[in-house]
Amino acid sequence: MRIGIVGAGSIGLLFAAYLHRVFEVTLYTRTEAQADWINKHGVQLKKGIGPLTAQVNAVPLDKGIGEAELTIIAVKQYQLESILEGLPQGGNYLFLQNGMGHLNALAHLSAENIYVGSVEHGALRENPTTVSHNGAGITRVAVYRGSSELLENFARNVPDFFPIQIAGDYYKMLANKLAANAVINPLTAILGVNNGELVNNKYFEKALEGLFDEVAQILSFTDRTNALTKVKGICRNTAENRSSMLKDLDAGRPTEVDAILGFLVDEAYRKKLKTPMISTYYHLIKGRELASRREMR
Amino acid sequence: MRIGIVGAGSIGLLFAAYLHRVFEVTLYTRTEAQADWINKHGVQLKKGIGPLTAQVNAVPLDKGIGEAELTIIAVKQYQLESILEGLPQGGNYLFLQNGMGHLNALAHLSAENIYVGSVEHGALRENPTTVSHNGAGITRVAVYRGSSELLENFARNVPDFFPIQIAGDYYKMLANKLAANAVINPLTAILGVNNGELVNNKYFEKALEGLFDEVAQILSFTDRTNALTKVKGICRNTAENRSSMLKDLDAGRPTEVDAILGFLVDEAYRKKLKTPMISTYYHLIKGRELASRREMR
Repeated sequence: MRIGIVGAGSIGLLFAAYLHRVFEVTLYTRTEAQADWINKHGVQLKKGIGPLTAQVNAVPLDKGIGEAELTIIAVKQYQLESILEGLPQGGNYLFLQNGMGHLNALAHLSAENIYVGSVEHGALRENPTTVSHNGAGITRVAVYRGSSELLENFARNVPDFFPIQIAGDYYKMLANKLAANAVINPLTAILGVNNGELVNNKYFEKALEGLFDEVAQILSFTDRTNALTKVKGICRNTAENRSSMLKDLDAGRPTEVDAILGFLVDEAYRKKLKTPMISTYYHLIKGRELASRREMR
Repeated sequence: MRIGIVGAGSIGLLFAAYLHRVFEVTLYTRTEAQADWINKHGVQLKKGIGPLTAQVNAVPLDKGIGEAELTIIAVKQYQLESILEGLPQGGNYLFLQNGMGHLNALAHLSAENIYVGSVEHGALRENPTTVSHNGAGITRVAVYRGSSELLENFARNVPDFFPIQIAGDYYKMLANKLAANAVINPLTAILGVNNGELVNNKYFEKALEGLFDEVAQILSFTDRTNALTKVKGICRNTAENRSSMLKDLDAGRPTEVDAILGFLVDEAYRKKLKTPMISTYYHLIKGRELASRREMR
């Protein structure tokens, strides 16, 4: 099976390194320099002891995205728009963005099959060719449009230690991930704490519950108690992790706040719901982004 | 005029140093050591060039509070309860606490005249005998119970460069100060920024406005636009200042969050108002306090 992977950030590199073992992988990078490095040195996967090298074929994005049986789109949501324009028509695509804001854009895409996924791995890009796999998890995928045949074939063939699990309901799957992201990311980013602190500190836990209630209302969760338990479980299971939003803020990079809280603010507006806490965290994170852009100048 | 000052923190030392020039001042300290230091070395007031020394009479609190024509209570609100028990009956008192939570306690106090004040100075206690007067402002005072005669006499006699201004409505005076404290303190403390950032960053300004609206509703402000303009004006006028709550959190000290946001949470409950943002900031600050107590252990 020929697999294309668009985007060579932490998730793109992680998928390239693992899928390379069983599929023919082409990795599309934003810069020509990164493609050159990868073609020369391979992708280094760091997990436990020393790095494993995967000799992946890399191509800069501006050379165009070629045909593949399945093309995985592993860019951040805010980079998606420009990518969508360049996709070959009629292909099969798996989108791995956080949030749910990209779903509207997918509705208009000309494609044979469209799948969406939710990546539950901890991964950190250390340099343009090296990814560290810090937290082993799974990838959940679901059919957004089309048939599940190709997706099932893909999931059956991935290595056991990099599992892909098929979910029945893409909306529910992404909503659960979004709820966790919407609660854990902003709180840890504003407070500068590891995920575990949100449940080890009774006051932070209260703040988490307040924010969660607004998120659950917007996403129309039917079993809020169960969903809240899951979010707290993620905090415990990833207690020592620093969330992606915290890492992005600390490094002065843009965060995914628009894909996560921005999407929820828009949904709340559409559903005529009041969400003062979500708006508050949205403004605090956007303000921190603005402040760090000013410092960089 | 004999003046007692209870509490030798930044505000107590500041008042002692200035009022000593025109009144006979007795300063009551929490520890005997501090009283000894002050009796030996005086109170050092740092403002602009080098320190001025005021030879103030200091007495440790556990020796009891003596009679004075006016006794100024300059302890934090959370230290007030124990002080109230030891006050001589029938005296004249000026209370300088932040917030409005202390008003209920004052209602039951046996006293001739009760005044309340709002201190708009920037002051930092550098050590047990030294206070730095960083931001020159004024002190607003008002009658809480009794007649204004003594207060007017006091205000007329203070040094020109340490002005005391009499306000007509104690509730409005304290409510305005509380609104500024409730908005500026938590936001700067959580974000770790100077006061000016709250109006120089459009996202932080949005967060400020959201929080202010909840505060204004609880305090029944009739002219919200005007009150909001005042709060933003304070941010601009004290742009380079670090708020007391930010300094307290950074130093691992307890903050005045209960006197400020805790009071508003209780008021909102009493008035059956929903205040999700105030609750959020309350929990974030309480959580930061808890986290820093754990680190200190």
